[in-house]
Amino acid sequence: MRWVEGFITADWGTTNRRAYLIDGDGQCVDEFEDDRGIMSVPREAFGDAVAEIRERLGDKPLLLAGMVGSNRGWIEAPYVQCPAGFDDIVDALEWPEPGRTAIVPGVSFQDSDQADVMRGEEVQLLGAFAAGIVADDALVCHPGTHNKWVRLQGGRIRRFTTVMTGELFSLLKEHSILSDLLSGSVEAGDAFARGVRRGLEGDRLTAELFKVRARVLLGEAEPQDAASYGSGLLIGTDVRTGLGEGQDTEICVMGSPKLTALYAEALRIAGRQPREVDGEQGFLAGARRLVELIDERS
Amino acid sequence: MRWVEGFITADWGTTNRRAYLIDGDGQCVDEFEDDRGIMSVPREAFGDAVAEIRERLGDKPLLLAGMVGSNRGWIEAPYVQCPAGFDDIVDALEWPEPGRTAIVPGVSFQDSDQADVMRGEEVQLLGAFAAGIVADDALVCHPGTHNKWVRLQGGRIRRFTTVMTGELFSLLKEHSILSDLLSGSVEAGDAFARGVRRGLEGDRLTAELFKVRARVLLGEAEPQDAASYGSGLLIGTDVRTGLGEGQDTEICVMGSPKLTALYAEALRIAGRQPREVDGEQGFLAGARRLVELIDERS
Repeated sequence: MRWVEGFITADWGTTNRRAYLIDGDGQCVDEFEDDRGIMSVPREAFGDAVAEIRERLGDKPLLLAGMVGSNRGWIEAPYVQCPAGFDDIVDALEWPEPGRTAIVPGVSFQDSDQADVMRGEEVQLLGAFAAGIVADDALVCHPGTHNKWVRLQGGRIRRFTTVMTGELFSLLKEHSILSDLLSGSVEAGDAFARGVRRGLEGDRLTAELFKVRARVLLGEAEPQDAASYGSGLLIGTDVRTGLGEGQDTEICVMGSPKLTALYAEALRIAGRQPREVDGEQGFLAGARRLVELIDERS
Repeated sequence: MRWVEGFITADWGTTNRRAYLIDGDGQCVDEFEDDRGIMSVPREAFGDAVAEIRERLGDKPLLLAGMVGSNRGWIEAPYVQCPAGFDDIVDALEWPEPGRTAIVPGVSFQDSDQADVMRGEEVQLLGAFAAGIVADDALVCHPGTHNKWVRLQGGRIRRFTTVMTGELFSLLKEHSILSDLLSGSVEAGDAFARGVRRGLEGDRLTAELFKVRARVLLGEAEPQDAASYGSGLLIGTDVRTGLGEGQDTEICVMGSPKLTALYAEALRIAGRQPREVDGEQGFLAGARRLVELIDERS
């Protein structure tokens, strides 16, 4: 049976998983999301957790991506090194059930100075390229818990760097002296823009974070602006780091729409032209392309 | 009764408090430390918590410093603005029990660009100056949960900036994807020095933090070095920020000996000459000087 005639693909992350049933026309005809991320699944229970996906979406070939292939997941799928394209990824698939269930490897980047890894984003990134959503030579910003700045070239992930912005904001919001102030909603308004500009100036993030509170204590800032300002400060710092990856005017911002909107605004403030792409669209295009390659090689 | 003939002073912070009984010769003759920080004391229970200090150390005049004077503490003692000396602080003491129990105000700094606050460190800083431990014009580094870089001039706190290094390291160690790696012990050896040098290069902290894990995953770094490297990275970034406060060759590093040793090593790597001072010595000298001024004005 050819996979393209109907398959399931899942983006299985640390804290949740999202699974899609794709029909022979490449359309998503059923899907679900739940909180059975890899941290909630003991290693010996992955067989059952996979069976549950098939019970809900059908007895089809299954392509898994994301942290499920990490050393904390089901079976480790070693990283493919940059420059990495779909060919390299198909060659490195792990097959817990040969011909029937495959795990996508992550991608690593190393040079004399840097070292970095991704898992899950590679399907979205290469999928967006395969679908013609991003150009042949593009700088992509992929926000999330760990934002990735990725250079795509000729259908391959050439290099990338990860910035811990999302996780840092969560840590500060949940557990720090700034918790009260950061618990409000984040809006891409004036306070956010002030934070972005401060972050783009760079180089003092760990000092500027404390001043979020000091400014409120001294009456220089309104407490209800602190979450937006703090988010802007972190995202502006992130954008400053990412813009070190290239002079590109247009930058593709891929991920969940709420986050891409904030990064797009920060990029506009930095004088670039962001183009927002829904990460799910890239993921489904990438899974479809991988499945075509699986069929070609079987 | 004159305070200098015998008094109690306490450094009462967020998570613990330390109290000292000082005799007429200025010697500390009894002390205790416990975990009754202000977060564990409901506002209406501060009277009892203060009475407990006197029960343990004697029925003496009591000088309280630290977060006990914050808006989350017993009674708020508003910030004294920089430049702030002991005169300004004595003028701004809060008196929950007139003539008998005083709370030291914090110090704030504001200019067109910056805003910052401290509570508790001011007694140590000015005390070190009063005791002749620091020079008339000195840059002081005061590590802790929130590190302070302080310009002391002519017996006054002229300006300062706070860096959230200690709290960030704790957050990352307790709650982040780096938790496992950062749980080891921090030693001022080669891995720490590598982290410091990377931090001194600056400007990419939120990216470099993620690479602590990536380097281990890719076999470029040993997991047992990660805590020291990560601490070095944060402290190096902190020192880079602090050295923006002046070209001073000699820099006083004041605080708890374990932390001052790490910052002193980082400053040596940055080409400066650190001089370590035990913060407790500064605190007791500062409390003694404040008490002399209380007596002069009563």
